[in-house]
Amino acid sequence: MDEVKVALYGVGAVGSLIAKSLLEKKGVKIVGAIDAAKEKVGKDLGEVLGLNRKIGITISSDVDVVLSKTKPDIAIHATSSYLKDTYPQIVSIVKHGVNVISTCEELSYPYYSEPKIAKELDRLAKKHDVTVLGTGINPGFLMDTLVITLTAACQKIEKIEAARVMDAATRRLPFQRKIGAGLTVEEFKQKIEKREITGHVGLEQSIAMIAAALAWKLDEIRIDPVEPVIAKEPAESEFIKVDAGKVAGLRQTARGIRKGKEVIVLDFQAYIGAKEEYDAITITGVPTIKQRIQPCVHGDAGTVAIIVNSIPKVLKASAGLLTMKDLPVPSAVTEDMRKYI
Amino acid sequence: MDEVKVALYGVGAVGSLIAKSLLEKKGVKIVGAIDAAKEKVGKDLGEVLGLNRKIGITISSDVDVVLSKTKPDIAIHATSSYLKDTYPQIVSIVKHGVNVISTCEELSYPYYSEPKIAKELDRLAKKHDVTVLGTGINPGFLMDTLVITLTAACQKIEKIEAARVMDAATRRLPFQRKIGAGLTVEEFKQKIEKREITGHVGLEQSIAMIAAALAWKLDEIRIDPVEPVIAKEPAESEFIKVDAGKVAGLRQTARGIRKGKEVIVLDFQAYIGAKEEYDAITITGVPTIKQRIQPCVHGDAGTVAIIVNSIPKVLKASAGLLTMKDLPVPSAVTEDMRKYI
Repeated sequence: MDEVKVALYGVGAVGSLIAKSLLEKKGVKIVGAIDAAKEKVGKDLGEVLGLNRKIGITISSDVDVVLSKTKPDIAIHATSSYLKDTYPQIVSIVKHGVNVISTCEELSYPYYSEPKIAKELDRLAKKHDVTVLGTGINPGFLMDTLVITLTAACQKIEKIEAARVMDAATRRLPFQRKIGAGLTVEEFKQKIEKREITGHVGLEQSIAMIAAALAWKLDEIRIDPVEPVIAKEPAESEFIKVDAGKVAGLRQTARGIRKGKEVIVLDFQAYIGAKEEYDAITITGVPTIKQRIQPCVHGDAGTVAIIVNSIPKVLKASAGLLTMKDLPVPSAVTEDMRKYI
Repeated sequence: MDEVKVALYGVGAVGSLIAKSLLEKKGVKIVGAIDAAKEKVGKDLGEVLGLNRKIGITISSDVDVVLSKTKPDIAIHATSSYLKDTYPQIVSIVKHGVNVISTCEELSYPYYSEPKIAKELDRLAKKHDVTVLGTGINPGFLMDTLVITLTAACQKIEKIEAARVMDAATRRLPFQRKIGAGLTVEEFKQKIEKREITGHVGLEQSIAMIAAALAWKLDEIRIDPVEPVIAKEPAESEFIKVDAGKVAGLRQTARGIRKGKEVIVLDFQAYIGAKEEYDAITITGVPTIKQRIQPCVHGDAGTVAIIVNSIPKVLKASAGLLTMKDLPVPSAVTEDMRKYI
């Protein structure tokens, strides 16, 4: 069997990390790279990745040319968190008969916020006999797939709570900026209003995916406003110093309400100086299950893993728009990728 | 859609708990019950379950009569841990065109210890267009499926360790006896020799399933001898008193060796007086993941959950002998079972 041929659609921060991971794997080959950024188009992928060697793949802004020339088995799509931005991009891949795995947060469970787009994407994917999956570490794994998996050990469930607390100091500078680290509370509020700070995208999708897996009909999914986490004492990362009283990062909570009760609560916290970092899941039921991953899974490292590890599952899956709960138990690809197909 | 029709094959300790759980669920109906025990045959299932009501199902020892009369969608099989005992029983179900979920520990990954039986069972299942699955909380979930799921967040893996430590005082008396609680070390050794104490069945199967999911070819799977856990101070359950110096329970370790290195280590401990009960998984890799469920998932409660929750997955699965890693992400059935199919 030939190596799995992958095209990259989006060679930004996350796309670049995925590319580097793929370059280290056996049985898989990057055959093309697409990006809209002028400073990247025309350059060799190796150069854009900051490697000391050329790879022989020139970054192009033309999806149709790249895909029709390279005929990949799958495209890894990493551009935006929002479905309205990514939908036309994903359609342009699907029309070439190419499978898609996307980091787009809203695509992790698009049936929630964009049911019409989801239906149309499912139709198109089936028409062109490809599979489309949105995934990542979160949404995609820690606050949804892993939660769903743990419910399998329960006979009854009253409430599901998942919390992710991360020290943003361990993350990329753009991420630290995105959560408002170092701002005054006033500046933070202004950036929230201008949507320059948006909070974590995907909490609603995670709740909707859990509810769908459990066949729970929710009255509604409530997203609390994004809250600043105020530094009680000075904290700092390699890049940003946070004085006491300033914003260290943010916290956001989302709630799934069923028959008037909070049944799913997701709590996301990312700030510089978090002393305990963890991913925790508590399912109150029969039996009650209290699970904790400590420290929390590193966001970028985990996203790269989930995306790359999903490739064989997607290649073997039936056509259509799928979500993580529809695929077989997820697992790592540590060997030649062809062994998993 | 009609209710899911279930036949019970084996109404012992675990089969009875499964039956009670099924009686509480909507959209599923017990239509028949099979057991070989003379004291059960001819009795109403309600009586055998210790309920205060008759259910209208008479326990029979004749598989063929029960299955041809009741035509169930699926049989829940709970008789023995060993494939040599359960194989003819499972074949007798499969030949009626009935899907099977079995608690048989060796069936959780039969390709390891009994590849010929596994192959033949797969052939028969496909011939009769049914699905056969062996599962439970362990093997079946805590030390294999959940481990596999967590590897999905890893790019590289050096070593996988899973430990299950349970206070046997919280379990049934037969379980406490099975682990040798209260014996002298000499008695324990004799019972090990006579195979009256066998240790935990399924560690090899869990290792083999993890290795298969990761496409790791193992040199061998090593099972350490069952060790007694000696009580350092007196401990007791409702049923058994363990003096200091006597056996409180047992510990067993199994190792998957690859390229000369221990890459998968499973450590099972069950004894009266365990102060900390937990299920822990550590995956050393990129990133390293340290996960802990504390207290550990209750064995019986968890097994019942996994078995019942697997029913819709098995009914929707393709024909053949499957293992947990082949099915979609497991999840709970808390609503009318027909909603999940």
